Amino acid sequence: MGGNDQQAYDRGTSLFSPDGRIYQVEYAREAVSRGAPSVGVRTADGVVFVAMSRASSTLMEAESIEKLHKLDEHLGTASAGHVADARQLIDLARRQAQGNHLRYGEPVGVETLTKFLTDHIQENTQRGGTRPYGAALLIGGIDDGEPRLFAADPSGTPNEWKATVIGGGRQEIQSVLEEEWEEGLSLVEGIELGVRALATHEEEFVPGDLAVATVTAADGYRTVPEGEVREAFEAVGLSADDEETADDAAEDDAADGDADDADSTDGDADGE
Amino acid sequence: MGGNDQQAYDRGTSLFSPDGRIYQVEYAREAVSRGAPSVGVRTADGVVFVAMSRASSTLMEAESIEKLHKLDEHLGTASAGHVADARQLIDLARRQAQGNHLRYGEPVGVETLTKFLTDHIQENTQRGGTRPYGAALLIGGIDDGEPRLFAADPSGTPNEWKATVIGGGRQEIQSVLEEEWEEGLSLVEGIELGVRALATHEEEFVPGDLAVATVTAADGYRTVPEGEVREAFEAVGLSADDEETADDAAEDDAADGDADDADSTDGDADGE
Amino acid sequence: MGGNDQQAYDRGTSLFSPDGRIYQVEYAREAVSRGAPSVGVRTADGVVFVAMSRASSTLMEAESIEKLHKLDEHLGTASAGHVADARQLIDLARRQAQGNHLRYGEPVGVETLTKFLTDHIQENTQRGGTRPYGAALLIGGIDDGEPRLFAADPSGTPNEWKATVIGGGRQEIQSVLEEEWEEGLSLVEGIELGVRALATHEEEFVPGDLAVATVTAADGYRTVPEGEVREAFEAVGLSADDEETADDAAEDDAADGDADDADSTDGDADGE
Amino acid sequence: MGGNDQQAYDRGTSLFSPDGRIYQVEYAREAVSRGAPSVGVRTADGVVFVAMSRASSTLMEAESIEKLHKLDEHLGTASAGHVADARQLIDLARRQAQGNHLRYGEPVGVETLTKFLTDHIQENTQRGGTRPYGAALLIGGIDDGEPRLFAADPSGTPNEWKATVIGGGRQEIQSVLEEEWEEGLSLVEGIELGVRALATHEEEFVPGDLAVATVTAADGYRTVPEGEVREAFEAVGLSADDEETADDAAEDDAADGDADDADSTDGDADGE
Amino acid sequence: MGGNDQQAYDRGTSLFSPDGRIYQVEYAREAVSRGAPSVGVRTADGVVFVAMSRASSTLMEAESIEKLHKLDEHLGTASAGHVADARQLIDLARRQAQGNHLRYGEPVGVETLTKFLTDHIQENTQRGGTRPYGAALLIGGIDDGEPRLFAADPSGTPNEWKATVIGGGRQEIQSVLEEEWEEGLSLVEGIELGVRALATHEEEFVPGDLAVATVTAADGYRTVPEGEVREAFEAVGLSADDEETADDAAEDDAADGDADDADSTDGDADGE
Amino acid sequence: MGGNDQQAYDRGTSLFSPDGRIYQVEYAREAVSRGAPSVGVRTADGVVFVAMSRASSTLMEAESIEKLHKLDEHLGTASAGHVADARQLIDLARRQAQGNHLRYGEPVGVETLTKFLTDHIQENTQRGGTRPYGAALLIGGIDDGEPRLFAADPSGTPNEWKATVIGGGRQEIQSVLEEEWEEGLSLVEGIELGVRALATHEEEFVPGDLAVATVTAADGYRTVPEGEVREAFEAVGLSADDEETADDAAEDDAADGDADDADSTDGDADGE
Amino acid sequence: MGGNDQQAYDRGTSLFSPDGRIYQVEYAREAVSRGAPSVGVRTADGVVFVAMSRASSTLMEAESIEKLHKLDEHLGTASAGHVADARQLIDLARRQAQGNHLRYGEPVGVETLTKFLTDHIQENTQRGGTRPYGAALLIGGIDDGEPRLFAADPSGTPNEWKATVIGGGRQEIQSVLEEEWEEGLSLVEGIELGVRALATHEEEFVPGDLAVATVTAADGYRTVPEGEVREAFEAVGLSADDEETADDAAEDDAADGDADDADSTDGDADGE
Repeated sequence: MGGNDQQAYDRGTSLFSPDGRIYQVEYAREAVSRGAPSVGVRTADGVVFVAMSRASSTLMEAESIEKLHKLDEHLGTASAGHVADARQLIDLARRQAQGNHLRYGEPVGVETLTKFLTDHIQENTQRGGTRPYGAALLIGGIDDGEPRLFAADPSGTPNEWKATVIGGGRQEIQSVLEEEWEEGLSLVEGIELGVRALATHEEEFVPGDLAVATVTAADGYRTVPEGEVREAFEAVGLSADDEETADDAAEDDAADGDADDADSTDGDADGE
Repeated sequence: MGGNDQQAYDRGTSLFSPDGRIYQVEYAREAVSRGAPSVGVRTADGVVFVAMSRASSTLMEAESIEKLHKLDEHLGTASAGHVADARQLIDLARRQAQGNHLRYGEPVGVETLTKFLTDHIQENTQRGGTRPYGAALLIGGIDDGEPRLFAADPSGTPNEWKATVIGGGRQEIQSVLEEEWEEGLSLVEGIELGVRALATHEEEFVPGDLAVATVTAADGYRTVPEGEVREAFEAVGLSADDEETADDAAEDDAADGDADDADSTDGDADGE
Repeated sequence: MGGNDQQAYDRGTSLFSPDGRIYQVEYAREAVSRGAPSVGVRTADGVVFVAMSRASSTLMEAESIEKLHKLDEHLGTASAGHVADARQLIDLARRQAQGNHLRYGEPVGVETLTKFLTDHIQENTQRGGTRPYGAALLIGGIDDGEPRLFAADPSGTPNEWKATVIGGGRQEIQSVLEEEWEEGLSLVEGIELGVRALATHEEEFVPGDLAVATVTAADGYRTVPEGEVREAFEAVGLSADDEETADDAAEDDAADGDADDADSTDGDADGE
Repeated sequence: MGGNDQQAYDRGTSLFSPDGRIYQVEYAREAVSRGAPSVGVRTADGVVFVAMSRASSTLMEAESIEKLHKLDEHLGTASAGHVADARQLIDLARRQAQGNHLRYGEPVGVETLTKFLTDHIQENTQRGGTRPYGAALLIGGIDDGEPRLFAADPSGTPNEWKATVIGGGRQEIQSVLEEEWEEGLSLVEGIELGVRALATHEEEFVPGDLAVATVTAADGYRTVPEGEVREAFEAVGLSADDEETADDAAEDDAADGDADDADSTDGDADGE
Repeated sequence: MGGNDQQAYDRGTSLFSPDGRIYQVEYAREAVSRGAPSVGVRTADGVVFVAMSRASSTLMEAESIEKLHKLDEHLGTASAGHVADARQLIDLARRQAQGNHLRYGEPVGVETLTKFLTDHIQENTQRGGTRPYGAALLIGGIDDGEPRLFAADPSGTPNEWKATVIGGGRQEIQSVLEEEWEEGLSLVEGIELGVRALATHEEEFVPGDLAVATVTAADGYRTVPEGEVREAFEAVGLSADDEETADDAAEDDAADGDADDADSTDGDADGE
Repeated sequence: MGGNDQQAYDRGTSLFSPDGRIYQVEYAREAVSRGAPSVGVRTADGVVFVAMSRASSTLMEAESIEKLHKLDEHLGTASAGHVADARQLIDLARRQAQGNHLRYGEPVGVETLTKFLTDHIQENTQRGGTRPYGAALLIGGIDDGEPRLFAADPSGTPNEWKATVIGGGRQEIQSVLEEEWEEGLSLVEGIELGVRALATHEEEFVPGDLAVATVTAADGYRTVPEGEVREAFEAVGLSADDEETADDAAEDDAADGDADDADSTDGDADGE
Repeated sequence: MGGNDQQAYDRGTSLFSPDGRIYQVEYAREAVSRGAPSVGVRTADGVVFVAMSRASSTLMEAESIEKLHKLDEHLGTASAGHVADARQLIDLARRQAQGNHLRYGEPVGVETLTKFLTDHIQENTQRGGTRPYGAALLIGGIDDGEPRLFAADPSGTPNEWKATVIGGGRQEIQSVLEEEWEEGLSLVEGIELGVRALATHEEEFVPGDLAVATVTAADGYRTVPEGEVREAFEAVGLSADDEETADDAAEDDAADGDADDADSTDGDADGE
């Protein structure tokens, strides 16, 4: 379907194209693809999140980019795509998780919370007067002692994964995961797999460019400190020398305009 | 009616074309046709659902594709088309089924539930500000001891069937069903018929690519385990060797872009 | 008024054309004309409904096509056009009939119910944000012992008839009715007239392709069994041999794409 | 103002054209002009309504065309234009007339009721999201013993008349009324004037093609039986032989497509 | 600003053109200019209204054209433009005047009522989904013993006048008023001035073509009988011979299509 | 940005242009520029308002043009642009000032009231379905004994001024103010400065063409009588001879179409 | 993506472009870029705000431009872009800060308040019928004794910064900040850094053109008086001679049309 024909059907969520597509949902997926990638890996011990989280300026506090979020004691999420859209979904998830404690006196399940979110996301793909969410989420945690990992995309489809990636470079990174993931990975091996997979997409990055977190039965949601990330770099044979490469990378980043999330507070980003 | 003329009338559910068609409903049917097929077979003992449910990646948990759903003790459904749309209808069906227990102390009938859903689906084809549901459902179960099978399409029309199919390859698969279905099939024969019918559309698939469930008076809704599916493969002369063909099939699947349901969490699917 | 001029005024129910027409209502009538025909005949003993109700597949339960509906003890309806639209109107009619019993302790009159429905239908032809109903209804029953028959079209106009037809082939079938209807027909003669009239439009059909019902003071709403329909076939000189012709007819039907009602669950119907 | 310019301003009730016109209201008047004419005549004894009310088929019950309606004991109306639109206004008028009895214990005045209706009609010419009513009404009755006759058009303007006509052929018929109406007409002379005036527009019609009613202080609203209409035909020198001409007229009617009201239940009318 | 450019900005009340104009308000003024003129004159003794009010047919009751309305004991109004629009404003004014009596036990002031109306009129020029009122009003009465006269136009601007005119021929008529109006006119002189001013616009008219009313402290709102209007005609040297000229004038009127108000119930007016 | 490009973005308040402009707000400013100018001057003793307020006809009561309004005992306003729009804002301001007395028992502050108004104005520049206010206001008064003067423009931006002008001829008039204003002006000097500044824009005007008011701690809001205005004329060397020039000026005014405010009740203004 | 293609997707907040962008948000960022810049610097002692705040006229009170606002005792904000839009956000922030005191008896946190605002901002980028806010904010204060500085852009993305700038000249100014900012700056050094950074964008300005404020644990929100700003000018080697350059700068400013904030009350700004 060529340009003009496509344009006839891509101006609203309340419209199918003749071949049964909802273009606004596909464009929202494109918004996710423009963002930096976030990887999720299910291991024997818990779920691992590894996200590109590189600041567009040396003066930006990298942790404020907020790619990873704790949702509940044993529940976390990684996002990709439009940061402000993702924040709305994460707020919603947190309120739902809190409400579950209040109403039922127990934590919400990983699958239950995922489907609550995807139902909300779907509604924004069917009613007019709104656009889909331009963000995808990985949702992971411990359900009855078992680690579980789900992905939610802009169409509102939930799927469970052993390991997956959302955001830019999805095909390359998913290939690495498919080749290297195996049952019985330890938590540390899961982190290493996430780092190695991201390295196939980004040419150079340092431990400070990543945000890493784990959810385990024992420790709940835990932000992995930079020191441990550095160890993972070394384990997989990547240079972990921040000082040398951080600025260059930031410049590269600005130059190729790929890391949309980090750039999204940069008012000039699109004008460069 | 040519391209430009058609485009004049296909941008909304609140619009008839000069020849009395509602194009958005027809495009929603096209969305269903892009999805993987689901077969329903009424047998003497109960209703059989056989659905293509092949994951787009070896790391995706195939059961999370969720083509088959239990709605009540003796009531199940199979979906085709947009997964997130189907989920909304299934949620609605479950709430209605639960409500029937609460209000009347008895299960909702298969026909009653089907018509409740199709009335809801119809409303999305008449009012502006929304699009039709891009999903079709098979709804089957036991009413007063009798197996019954209904289909609900995006126009909101309910029909009762001895055996039918929703989703891609509908014409070929329905032809097989029309030729081979007969009164008095056993439940196992119903499963075999479903497998054989799907095989006319898909060149290669393995037991793990299918989701199979039955609803009988004796056992209620029951997910058929892969072992029994493998037996059905062998009974109808299909190779059931998962290891050999699964990856190849997944690749084929990506290549011909046909299995929309499974692909719908794949942000790059449409860009390939 | 040519194509471009007409297109300027045919995109909404809230718009008159310069020559005072409401095109969306006319297109909704076209939707009715695309459907299979339903005949209503007023006889001395009651009202007769004879509707084409041929399944698009041998596996579809023909009675689920539901062209005829009981609305109250002495009140029935026949529909033509979009099945899902007709169902909404019929649901509304039933609720109104039930409400009349509850509020006034007596059945609703045929004329009263017809006008309740047509007022509702009209509202969908004047307000924006919706489309007209793509269905017409025949409403017949016994009022104070007298048989009465009304028709409601997509404009919301009610009219009373001695005999009439809605749906495809309207002109030919109405001509037969005008030539052959006379006061004092018996109920059986009414059925025969309905069958004979439909035969002028359809080349070949069998008793199982028809749905027939009567409403009389004595028996209320009664579905006429296939055996009696077969007798009517023989009385008017039509072949009633199901086995021979049913499949062929279904094929013909698919080939000429005329029986929209039956086809409406067929996702491929419009693509053939 | 030419075609393209006019089209810039004729798509909504909430829009003036540069020359201060509201085209949708003018198109609604055109819809009235497409309908069969209804005449109102004020006489010394009361108000007379004479309306063309010819069925489009010999099987249609002519009285169900319903051009004349009793609104209250001494209050009636004649309509022209879209039947379903007129019915909505008449329902509203009846409810208002009934409400007046309930609230004030006395009948609503002719002028009061007319202005209630025209205020409602006007609102549909100013707010967006709706179209004007495609119908005009004559409203006549006895106020404090005096016969009064009003007309309400699609703009919502009320005017009082000695005698007037709404619907098709308005100019010719009004000319006859202006030439022949005089103070002090008897009720019978009023009927004869109405019949004679309609005869200038329609070439051939018979008593059964007309609906005639009167409102007098003595008898209230009264439907004039066909026998009296036949006498009026003879008095004015028209042939009153139904049998000979009815079918031909119906054919003529279908052929020239003029009697929109009667045709409006005819799904094929516009396709002829 | 040429045609195409103007058309870019004239489709809604919620839109400014680049040169700061609201075209829909200007088109509404054009609608007023198409109507017959109404003159208001402030005299020492009270306010005089003189309005063209000529029926489009000899059978129309001229007083039903209703150009002048009593709003309260010492408060009246004259309208020009769309009759149905003016009626809505007059209804609103009357309800407000009545409400003032109920709430405060005293009559509403002329200025207060005018500004209440113009505020309402303005709202229809700013919010979308509606059109401006296509009518202007003169509002006159006695405030604290003093005669006052205001005009309200479709933009919702209130202004106070010694004498002014709304409707067609505004420039010529206002010139006469400016030349001839002076402080201290008697009521009769005010009527004569109004008649003389209208005579500059209309070539021929008779006393029956005018509606005249006065508001004085002594007599409140008073409709001036035709005999007194005839005296004014004679005083200003106009022929007051009704019989001779009325029909001709009506014909002229129809021919030049100028008297929009009177014509507005004439469904054929725009088609002549 | 050229014509076509600009037109792509100037049809709504809910739309930015690619260069970050909101054209509807700019067009509303243009509407203000089309109006007659109003000057505000802060002096040591209070705030001075001097507004062009020339009637478009000698029969219009000049004070009814109402460019200056008292809002509270020590609070006044001058407007420019669409009169009806300004009136809505002034009504709102008055209700807010009254409410402040009721709620807090003290007068509202000049700055507080200004910001209340500008917040309201801003909302009409962001939400769809409305247009911005086509009016600007000067708001001046005494806060804690100090004279203060604010301006509110159609974007809803509040700014405080020593002296400024809104409406037509803004640049020339503001230049005079910038050159001649100085700290410590007396009230009379402030009036003279206002008159002199306006004289740079208008070629000829007389004291009766101006409305002048002051707000001082001592006298509150005070309308300056024409006699004092005449003295200011003489003080600044302008001719104050009303009789000679008023009519000519009115003619000039009509001819150059500049005084939009005064003309806004003139239905023919835009057609000349 | 070229002009026409871009225009297909840039007319609403509820629309993605095919490459996943929301153009209205990018245009809102452009609106911010058109405004004068505001710098925020986090120092060891607190947060520093330095904003260009130059009046467009010597008669405008510079402080009324209001680029800096106190939100709470230890919380302040600096804005850039559309002044009226920024004011709405600041009002909202203040009400939220006050509400926190009332509800929880303690001040709202810097991060909490920022995210409350960005969530509100995001909603205006997803729902139709509104436009994004054309303003950005820096929000800074003391949280648990620690200085923190956040930025909120029109997409609704919150980020924490050591030092950053919003508004025009963002790239140059941010470069200076990145080169010169270091841990442990004193408050005075922070002010000097802000002044020096702004000087890279503006060719000439004087202390009176700047608004400077600080938030420290000791003094809370404090407006820095012009004397101290002058000292900072001298410390960084800039001329602080107001008299000489202010007018010239204002003229320059008008000439290059860059300082949108200050100009926004200037109705002629865009017409120059």
